[in-house]
Amino acid sequence: MSVLVVGSVALDSVETPFGRADSVIGGSATYFASAASHFAPVQLVGIVGEDYPVDKLKPLAARGVDLAGLEHAPGESFRWRGRYRHDLNSAETLETRLGVFSHFRPKIPEAFRRAPFVFLANIDPRLQMDVLGQVERPRLVACDTMNFWIESRRNDVIALLGRVDLITLNDGEARQLTERTNLVHAARWILEKGPRYVIVKKGEHGAFMFTKTSTFFAPAYPLEQVFDPTGAGDSFAGGFMGHLARTGELSDANLRRAVVVGSAMGSFAVERFSNERLLSVTPAEIDQRIAEFQDLVAFERGAPVAGAATGR
Amino acid sequence: MSVLVVGSVALDSVETPFGRADSVIGGSATYFASAASHFAPVQLVGIVGEDYPVDKLKPLAARGVDLAGLEHAPGESFRWRGRYRHDLNSAETLETRLGVFSHFRPKIPEAFRRAPFVFLANIDPRLQMDVLGQVERPRLVACDTMNFWIESRRNDVIALLGRVDLITLNDGEARQLTERTNLVHAARWILEKGPRYVIVKKGEHGAFMFTKTSTFFAPAYPLEQVFDPTGAGDSFAGGFMGHLARTGELSDANLRRAVVVGSAMGSFAVERFSNERLLSVTPAEIDQRIAEFQDLVAFERGAPVAGAATGR
Repeated sequence: MSVLVVGSVALDSVETPFGRADSVIGGSATYFASAASHFAPVQLVGIVGEDYPVDKLKPLAARGVDLAGLEHAPGESFRWRGRYRHDLNSAETLETRLGVFSHFRPKIPEAFRRAPFVFLANIDPRLQMDVLGQVERPRLVACDTMNFWIESRRNDVIALLGRVDLITLNDGEARQLTERTNLVHAARWILEKGPRYVIVKKGEHGAFMFTKTSTFFAPAYPLEQVFDPTGAGDSFAGGFMGHLARTGELSDANLRRAVVVGSAMGSFAVERFSNERLLSVTPAEIDQRIAEFQDLVAFERGAPVAGAATGR
Repeated sequence: MSVLVVGSVALDSVETPFGRADSVIGGSATYFASAASHFAPVQLVGIVGEDYPVDKLKPLAARGVDLAGLEHAPGESFRWRGRYRHDLNSAETLETRLGVFSHFRPKIPEAFRRAPFVFLANIDPRLQMDVLGQVERPRLVACDTMNFWIESRRNDVIALLGRVDLITLNDGEARQLTERTNLVHAARWILEKGPRYVIVKKGEHGAFMFTKTSTFFAPAYPLEQVFDPTGAGDSFAGGFMGHLARTGELSDANLRRAVVVGSAMGSFAVERFSNERLLSVTPAEIDQRIAEFQDLVAFERGAPVAGAATGR
């Protein structure tokens, strides 16, 4: 089954303690598609300007990402420039030039409107809502958001919650949106607004998936080198949605698996600049990392404490 | 088998967003013993002043904590006053009065010297080393430390690493001691200095256990209310060492289980002020929480990605 993603296609300039990259391909939809393409056909809707090196998207097309929804508009592409210091968990934005992205009105091509899995990457919640008016009964709709929208369009974000099955957001955003410091309370608040699943991303500290009846946690993979954290969250979402589209199954067990696949793809994304590693990673490497995730948390319960001799 | 703990027995005054407690029993050895006593006999070595409400330790004695090594000295007991704001991960120390603790020279009673499990709680590394000269070939020695000793007695901390099997420290301390920001690198640095196991505690973000050949991670339990984080780390250590002493088994699988038991005890500790909850928790509640930990991270691997049809 296919996944539709609507989001940004950008040019990023990034500085990390390990090096720098100038005007490399980035954007939420790009990272998402790069990760998801390992699992399912992807349909991408976004916008680029005249300056975009569209050649650099060819490897995505070759991997089954349908770029028919990528609008080419007069003007400059969305450009982001940022820096990470030693705390690789938070980026310092040095410059954001929205360019053509500021006029982005997503138009979902006819051929994309029946995508069973839809991911609304981090864009204006009104546009996210508008996309939902253009698609036909997807099996699962997920969205992302960010602090900027929570501050400036809080009511729209909350209205969107009533229309999606799942939301991914980071811990700071969850606290900001819900005005609750405790993540369990924050997740419950969000679940009451509509979604059946809330995924709270904690960067290098892993991710929680909350439903009304269960909580799942996947650690971040303990990498020896986080090279560039840009795109980790969207790569997580790409792995997550890609796995669901590949398997077509929405059981609790399969959503847990999807979180781990997402965590694996997020961990690959940060090993190199841009989407480099997401393009080079092999299916065997993905399987290997998923196995390592399982080993990382595996333990067997011993004899119960209750009623046992304590050896006194 | 029994566990020997050497550390502080203090009076804490704590303020959290949820309330305050004045001069309640605290200290690393107290928390450790309260947690460990659910699993094994505990032998405690510490020091208190004339003002200590020793009656309040009776519940510990009743739970099998041998207080024969608790020295009563003229003067004031160790008192700590601190505050937690909304970030419950870090305490703000308002006042520390060492009192008799500043003259603490641990004397291990004859009857405690053959304890098979020894925990050197956070005290001067020279005193920790001195304790090791007083005990006879324990099966496992673990130690804790803190930023203060890493700053002021770094060489002693490093020397101690050559004499212990395991060290617990928090992520900030691991980075400070090793001068490496990446935790995998930090853990490897420590393992090269001697210990077979390094446990890196990340507060509400869980704990890693590193060995030369494997990495294990246990999340923190997603509590709905963290009431008072004081003592979580020592309660973790108490659960960990208590489980090892109860089972007497040092396999990798059993150490993983011990990390989960430790995480469970840490999660109980923070539900109330002082050691209140550690004293009231039942074996059935402990088993229940361990089961919840297992459910929290459980997932089954699906069909491999490699060689699978992607549904294109």
